[in-house]
Amino acid sequence: MHAFQIYITQYTTLPKGDWEQIATCLTEREYSKGAILLEEGKICRKLYFLESGLMHYYVNRDGREVTKYFTEPPYCFTSQRSFTKDLPAGESIQAITDSRVWEMSKSDAFRLLDELPSWNTFVRTLIQEVQYYTEIILEDLQNKTAEERYAEMIAERNALLEQVPLKYLASYLGIAPQSLSRIRKRFYERQKNR
Amino acid sequence: MHAFQIYITQYTTLPKGDWEQIATCLTEREYSKGAILLEEGKICRKLYFLESGLMHYYVNRDGREVTKYFTEPPYCFTSQRSFTKDLPAGESIQAITDSRVWEMSKSDAFRLLDELPSWNTFVRTLIQEVQYYTEIILEDLQNKTAEERYAEMIAERNALLEQVPLKYLASYLGIAPQSLSRIRKRFYERQKNR
Repeated sequence: MHAFQIYITQYTTLPKGDWEQIATCLTEREYSKGAILLEEGKICRKLYFLESGLMHYYVNRDGREVTKYFTEPPYCFTSQRSFTKDLPAGESIQAITDSRVWEMSKSDAFRLLDELPSWNTFVRTLIQEVQYYTEIILEDLQNKTAEERYAEMIAERNALLEQVPLKYLASYLGIAPQSLSRIRKRFYERQKNR
Repeated sequence: MHAFQIYITQYTTLPKGDWEQIATCLTEREYSKGAILLEEGKICRKLYFLESGLMHYYVNRDGREVTKYFTEPPYCFTSQRSFTKDLPAGESIQAITDSRVWEMSKSDAFRLLDELPSWNTFVRTLIQEVQYYTEIILEDLQNKTAEERYAEMIAERNALLEQVPLKYLASYLGIAPQSLSRIRKRFYERQKNR
């Protein structure tokens, strides 16, 4: 079964004919590590499904790259506001590792909303989930120290941490790379002494 | 025209028959200042439209109330994940001022998704917008100081600031009430000297 088909069925039931209609709208692409899929300021015209690899959302703030979040497979991604409203994207999307994605054009993604109730439900449920995850990140930023957030990432997203350059991780945690080094040192010292 | 009808038409075209169907699902409620509409840990079974007043989302962290965000009228609100998945709410919702809301039951809100394409589009577009606003708050937390964020609120949401108790505002900015007092003092000193 196609990885995207399996993924969609985690959100909604997908009649076989529906999947075939969706599949005709997908194009497979391989992106090398470091490839930019979307540049801040450009209009995002694609919906992506990440089958393997790792994506990095970041914004440019006064010449600094600031990491917003990471997308791990299997997951859908796009620059949502740019994609839905034809506005310049407020972020860049870059492959952190070699990645395999499936792309769908905006016109197909919107046409399917009208044609397939299953696709419509999938998209709505997915956006709700993304909204929920964004809220969690927000709450953590409001409530937790960088050290607590780092410890949680170790516990919950260790595979991600192994692939992410430390400068992106520091920026995601909202701290300087030097502060992350100190946190990491303390963290591993404590682990050693347990 | 009903305030909620006007609100929905900002997101999608709404055939007259559709509005009448939606209207039959709405119940008007008045909440006094301080009333709790939803308690953290309870299941949220309603979708709300805020016609007037002001709402305050907060979470309890080790006995401290931490403000997540404010909802200003006209806007829809609910505890999204709790509402859609029947899970205990991760937040409380409280009226900061006397408020007039319109409530819709979960069963009606979901039934309308199947029955009215206009309602379906409205809900999807609204969730996208909420997701976008959440991302903005997140980006600001990652990138801006509490002082910069306070200055922006003064510029963009001054009416809100006048209604929000300072302790909620401090918590929303992720700082101690004393720090907010210092920021406010510096801010108004600078304004005075301009």
